[in-house]
Amino acid sequence: MRKNSATSAIRELAKLTIGMHGKDFLLTWEKSDQEIRATLLTAEILRSLYESNVSLRLFQSGLAVSIFRDKSTRTRFSFASAANLLGLGVQDLDEEKSQIAHGETVRETANMISFLTEAIGIRDDMYIGEGNKYMREVAAALDEGLREGVLPQRPAIVNLQCDIDHPTQAMADLCHLKREFGGLDKLKGRKIAMTWAYSPSYGKPLSVPQGIIGLMTRFGMEVVLAHPEGYTLLPETLKIAQQNAKKSGGAFRVAHSMEEAFKNADIVYPKSWAPFSVMEQRTQLLRAGDSAGLKDLERRALENNARFKTWECNEKLMALTRSGGDTPALYMHCLPADISGVSCKEGEVSGKVFEKYRITTYREASFKPFIIASMILLSKFKSPAGLLAGIGRKKLRRISG
Amino acid sequence: MRKNSATSAIRELAKLTIGMHGKDFLLTWEKSDQEIRATLLTAEILRSLYESNVSLRLFQSGLAVSIFRDKSTRTRFSFASAANLLGLGVQDLDEEKSQIAHGETVRETANMISFLTEAIGIRDDMYIGEGNKYMREVAAALDEGLREGVLPQRPAIVNLQCDIDHPTQAMADLCHLKREFGGLDKLKGRKIAMTWAYSPSYGKPLSVPQGIIGLMTRFGMEVVLAHPEGYTLLPETLKIAQQNAKKSGGAFRVAHSMEEAFKNADIVYPKSWAPFSVMEQRTQLLRAGDSAGLKDLERRALENNARFKTWECNEKLMALTRSGGDTPALYMHCLPADISGVSCKEGEVSGKVFEKYRITTYREASFKPFIIASMILLSKFKSPAGLLAGIGRKKLRRISG
Amino acid sequence: MRKNSATSAIRELAKLTIGMHGKDFLLTWEKSDQEIRATLLTAEILRSLYESNVSLRLFQSGLAVSIFRDKSTRTRFSFASAANLLGLGVQDLDEEKSQIAHGETVRETANMISFLTEAIGIRDDMYIGEGNKYMREVAAALDEGLREGVLPQRPAIVNLQCDIDHPTQAMADLCHLKREFGGLDKLKGRKIAMTWAYSPSYGKPLSVPQGIIGLMTRFGMEVVLAHPEGYTLLPETLKIAQQNAKKSGGAFRVAHSMEEAFKNADIVYPKSWAPFSVMEQRTQLLRAGDSAGLKDLERRALENNARFKTWECNEKLMALTRSGGDTPALYMHCLPADISGVSCKEGEVSGKVFEKYRITTYREASFKPFIIASMILLSKFKSPAGLLAGIGRKKLRRISG
Repeated sequence: MRKNSATSAIRELAKLTIGMHGKDFLLTWEKSDQEIRATLLTAEILRSLYESNVSLRLFQSGLAVSIFRDKSTRTRFSFASAANLLGLGVQDLDEEKSQIAHGETVRETANMISFLTEAIGIRDDMYIGEGNKYMREVAAALDEGLREGVLPQRPAIVNLQCDIDHPTQAMADLCHLKREFGGLDKLKGRKIAMTWAYSPSYGKPLSVPQGIIGLMTRFGMEVVLAHPEGYTLLPETLKIAQQNAKKSGGAFRVAHSMEEAFKNADIVYPKSWAPFSVMEQRTQLLRAGDSAGLKDLERRALENNARFKTWECNEKLMALTRSGGDTPALYMHCLPADISGVSCKEGEVSGKVFEKYRITTYREASFKPFIIASMILLSKFKSPAGLLAGIGRKKLRRISG
Repeated sequence: MRKNSATSAIRELAKLTIGMHGKDFLLTWEKSDQEIRATLLTAEILRSLYESNVSLRLFQSGLAVSIFRDKSTRTRFSFASAANLLGLGVQDLDEEKSQIAHGETVRETANMISFLTEAIGIRDDMYIGEGNKYMREVAAALDEGLREGVLPQRPAIVNLQCDIDHPTQAMADLCHLKREFGGLDKLKGRKIAMTWAYSPSYGKPLSVPQGIIGLMTRFGMEVVLAHPEGYTLLPETLKIAQQNAKKSGGAFRVAHSMEEAFKNADIVYPKSWAPFSVMEQRTQLLRAGDSAGLKDLERRALENNARFKTWECNEKLMALTRSGGDTPALYMHCLPADISGVSCKEGEVSGKVFEKYRITTYREASFKPFIIASMILLSKFKSPAGLLAGIGRKKLRRISG
Repeated sequence: MRKNSATSAIRELAKLTIGMHGKDFLLTWEKSDQEIRATLLTAEILRSLYESNVSLRLFQSGLAVSIFRDKSTRTRFSFASAANLLGLGVQDLDEEKSQIAHGETVRETANMISFLTEAIGIRDDMYIGEGNKYMREVAAALDEGLREGVLPQRPAIVNLQCDIDHPTQAMADLCHLKREFGGLDKLKGRKIAMTWAYSPSYGKPLSVPQGIIGLMTRFGMEVVLAHPEGYTLLPETLKIAQQNAKKSGGAFRVAHSMEEAFKNADIVYPKSWAPFSVMEQRTQLLRAGDSAGLKDLERRALENNARFKTWECNEKLMALTRSGGDTPALYMHCLPADISGVSCKEGEVSGKVFEKYRITTYREASFKPFIIASMILLSKFKSPAGLLAGIGRKKLRRISG
């Protein structure tokens, strides 16, 4: 999408009724359909203007703070890129990995880091029942700080992955699908298989599959979630997927084999995750500081995983998908994938299949910085369409020369 | 304070005779009364322009380097916010916690990090007799680097806390008092109680109480320092407080009970610190690498602390302060406070008292980024009033839209 | 060099035929003579404009990513300064020290960190046969990413030190020599002694001496490399030095005493390094994770080093150099030096000699940020002379006021 399409996308954005100003982006299902569309459109407009060398420096100063509970390269760089694109300086807040802060510590810290801060990105996916809750505690503290005159502005919180949803990933994935299939309306009736896959590691978060079934069911798609017995997701996210599918005229169901899910699928998303019950036990053990218990849980979980090594996305399975036509079945992954024979002995995807889609997965990831920038922009600016139109007209160059 | 008050504050600033250009901010008592006033005014002007969405990007490029000997969230973010506000990029220099560098290492490093650097913030409060000395070594190295043509510009050093003073804290506190009481002249005759309070931790620096008595005695206030026997401060800072009080028509005295200090106080600042003699021993043991000795010292110091658990700021004590009138007694703290029943079992302040003043302490902290930006600005620019007037006139927006 | 000289340097730059756009800076000997001159000139122009308070913010947004395999202060700050000077935000990628990544990990990470990235600086000097190879793997991944539409732009890679060359150091050193001697043509016929010197530490990289002999032989100088038996460099770099000397009308030879090298030298560069064979063994042991073997190698290497404690640059040796005339012999070092009686008991240089040249070595280092900025600029912009002329005309101020 180049400048002309930016213009038409801005016109489309102007027609949407949204109420995102001053709000955080914590769960996709808290946003209306028009708001989801606005987020996609804004990301696309930003990308298009960026590719036309238009400066998107909306802030002359201001911080963007990232809070990560675990190590992250991809998300860290996506957030840093998005913040930098809009003119914000990035500062990391290193919290102790093992520490679940509550109450006064959260309230106080939230305010202390926010005096000149415009956006806060939080990744907190390690504890079931904690990550999203923590984000809401921070949000409430910022609300109070703004109300009480402590903060001259209220930073926008962006959920960079929690125990419930991974909205920047799911939205970037949706951007990718929109481009690959030629429009959101083209997704109607398509079958997407969000399936568990074997991994030699344990404790992978549930937020990606939960985010995918929570979002993709909103566009009339046939969403099939497949996993071995026991690898269930957070019950509330299944309910949301169910409701969304009903409302959008799509479908949502759970299957228990990759074959069933892959059959005639337009899109496959094979990815490992830990069973919800294991994550719950893990949270309790972490809280209790029971490292022997944690080791034991890991051993049992890995043993259980090993029973499902056949859950690998390979050519035989891909052959079941809807091939032919102008858009053959698409393989998706949030990266890094566990690639059999490449990054591990046996993993989520065979080397052959991954190699075929490798570049496509990189492209899938390329939307994330723009989605994050879009989320920040829509929270910070009242009239995004007018603002973007103005930027497009001014054509201040991002790079001199 | 909004734009109109910025204009009048700039006029006030223009009338002051100051010589801060090219100088570092290391101790408040090295600055003249007019310079202290200029620092406050500049901070207020910056805040006012910021709140009016005026861009304060004075630098199109340039680094601000922070050097911290221990972990810090609050001060790190205040410095980063201030630097970012003025357009500088923040870089941290991670020095080994345990290493007291001297001589060639300091001279060389100071120059190597300064080729394109405009400001250096240093926090070095762990060693009695070392922190401020280290800052002066860095300063001398930068002077030499500038003189010898190594550096194209001389970065301004801001003391972010040393063994002697904590000028950014004390000045932010003064900003807070000026606003709460409606002007510096309104502080005359007010009683401020800087008192020790119990904490379950040990080795807290002395720089906050030293900074407070060294600064607040300059405005005709009645400053009472209270602590249990033995919890004395650095003798030279007591002398400075004495001299300042005499000169300003205020008073300074040491008391040995919280009750005495709180009686009719307008402001109370209950905060834990380690006895000067303990900090001296600690420095010697750290230097000698005597970890057994350090453990023993900690044990003894904590035992001694425990004798003074009644030194807690609670409602009974607050009832002794000057209540009534339009400005009831103010509780202050540099945060984080040890709050009884919240962050610890028994601490510096009761949960009830803290909760009542919680938001006020956040507001107190909110001045720090602007005070730091003010210190950098006054060191880097010859004619601050003219500069700020020009910025106010141009009204370049900080945030687009 | 001030503004007028910037103008004439820009004219000189415009006359050069270079093909650096879209290329990385990995080894000086991959660049033509005109390209080496262009890099020097651009660095000088940037410094001159900077010193005239001209803003060099060529980018309104964009990241500069630094990848360091080991701790670094000097290089980290040089890269950060250069990036910030051009308007880029700095982000560090912390890779595990001990991990040599290859294949998919490198390809993927290279793309994931580059969506909005303009420059990547890599320092990877710990493994013989690995550092430069790794840079080329990253480069190939970026080429693919650009070609396949993953990346909207291709970041420029700058070698911040590898196992083969240290081009930012060697080029900054050349800048220094050009200024000290009054022009590149004045270097013709000068004798430079690149000699090994004793250090109480082990495993110092070979990239500095290799970079120096590979670059200085291109300007008609008499380059003498001196080291004790066994302390050989990477054979291919000796060959390159040989060829360069031949082509430029200079000379290159290996000597086995400091005395021989220092005799009538115009420039001396005494610096410790590990023997090539030791570095090779070390790489194998590191790969095998053989920590007992590594300890044993270190012990043996230090014992061997200790046989050559007389290889110290002192006043007696300096007396052998070409003194007199308007340019007495110059002592160079990449810093930090092992200074006898200062930073160690016995080291590379005596305290007296170092103190005499201390400030000069700081000045030598001061060119590095500008050299790095020059390398980024020449890779990112097609018409550097026109661009710089435009900047010089516009005279947008770097610092307000």
